[in-house]
Amino acid sequence: MKALFFDVFGTMVDWRGGVARESRAILAPLGFSLDWIAFSEAWRAQYQPAMEEIRAGRSSYVRLDVVHRRMLDTIRPQFGLEALDERTLAELVLAWHRLDAWPDVKGGFARLRKRYLVAPVSNGNIALMVGIARHNDLRWDAILGSEIAQDFKPKPRVYLASAEALGLAPSDCTLVAAHSSDLAAAAAAGLGTAHVARPDESPRGENAPTVPVDVAATDFEDLADKLGA
Amino acid sequence: MKALFFDVFGTMVDWRGGVARESRAILAPLGFSLDWIAFSEAWRAQYQPAMEEIRAGRSSYVRLDVVHRRMLDTIRPQFGLEALDERTLAELVLAWHRLDAWPDVKGGFARLRKRYLVAPVSNGNIALMVGIARHNDLRWDAILGSEIAQDFKPKPRVYLASAEALGLAPSDCTLVAAHSSDLAAAAAAGLGTAHVARPDESPRGENAPTVPVDVAATDFEDLADKLGA
Repeated sequence: MKALFFDVFGTMVDWRGGVARESRAILAPLGFSLDWIAFSEAWRAQYQPAMEEIRAGRSSYVRLDVVHRRMLDTIRPQFGLEALDERTLAELVLAWHRLDAWPDVKGGFARLRKRYLVAPVSNGNIALMVGIARHNDLRWDAILGSEIAQDFKPKPRVYLASAEALGLAPSDCTLVAAHSSDLAAAAAAGLGTAHVARPDESPRGENAPTVPVDVAATDFEDLADKLGA
Repeated sequence: MKALFFDVFGTMVDWRGGVARESRAILAPLGFSLDWIAFSEAWRAQYQPAMEEIRAGRSSYVRLDVVHRRMLDTIRPQFGLEALDERTLAELVLAWHRLDAWPDVKGGFARLRKRYLVAPVSNGNIALMVGIARHNDLRWDAILGSEIAQDFKPKPRVYLASAEALGLAPSDCTLVAAHSSDLAAAAAAGLGTAHVARPDESPRGENAPTVPVDVAATDFEDLADKLGA
């Protein structure tokens, strides 16, 4: 194994708490008082339906920033946000660029990158991954994943294009993720798999993988231990 | 200005000395005794003709690693290297992944990345840029340039796709390069321009820009001074 690919949302960063915090910082000064966690969860709940439009070919590839905006437009009426101006909407989309890493990520990740090439293989676009990396001082070798593949996980092309970009065989690469569906798709594409438990990600957070994986870790420090880093 | 884009070969790394050193390390144990600098210069001299085949559309886009192999095949007869096996040829192509940065790069670059987003906008492919970054401990925000644009500089698409990947306007980005032709193309695409003198790059190394530029620096430390980093 030469490279580790990382899912980001949920696996490395806390989208639920981060989107709630950032949305509140933008909207509370404008007089809005929402259940911010419910708003964050509702926004994220539009993710799979929005992805499916593109993966099924009914909509062409657009960056996740654009998808996040479409998802936001879908839920605005539920939260009384119909009247927001364009600038505020654009600011809200950038909330996703400022999500905090889970506390165990920093130390474990630093150990892992000494031994392996490391790259996000996320559905997030390059600018979004750069924002999260700067926000959390994460050092990537390259930003791979959705934007270089021009498609979204769990399509095999996303995992395969990421391995090709590093000049590696799929079997030289292992996906690290907190979601069994992502790991099952990576395994089907020929990659190794490492599950990280994130029971606090959301009410559907996984304590353990529901599919066979090569490694199952409790957090990033445990993952570094188990991968000999 | 929010992002700095960097040309790499010649501007940041010494391809002439590096390819000579690495080629010697591979070929001398096999009994070859070449003028290693002449070999390096001859290999690089095939660069523009090989690029032109692709830029003109006579050959489809392939990664620079593949182009480097084609260029090597062109010059092998000149140096008596017709009989090399596939493994040795593949090793020679990887010589380009292990080039040393010029001595002034490390300090100036570290200062610049504190203030700006930084990305290579090179004709080198992602794996090649990752190799050079690991070899020299360079910390990029993302690997942009040729592979994400699926074309080669000085085509405008390469500069524009790199700005778009960061969600920035071309005018928010400045290209740093030691070659006036590269800077002229970047300026035509709407980017800012910064020249770094590299008179020792090759017999054609530039002491000063031959086109109008926004900034002209003697080296990376001087560039950091001039960009307020």
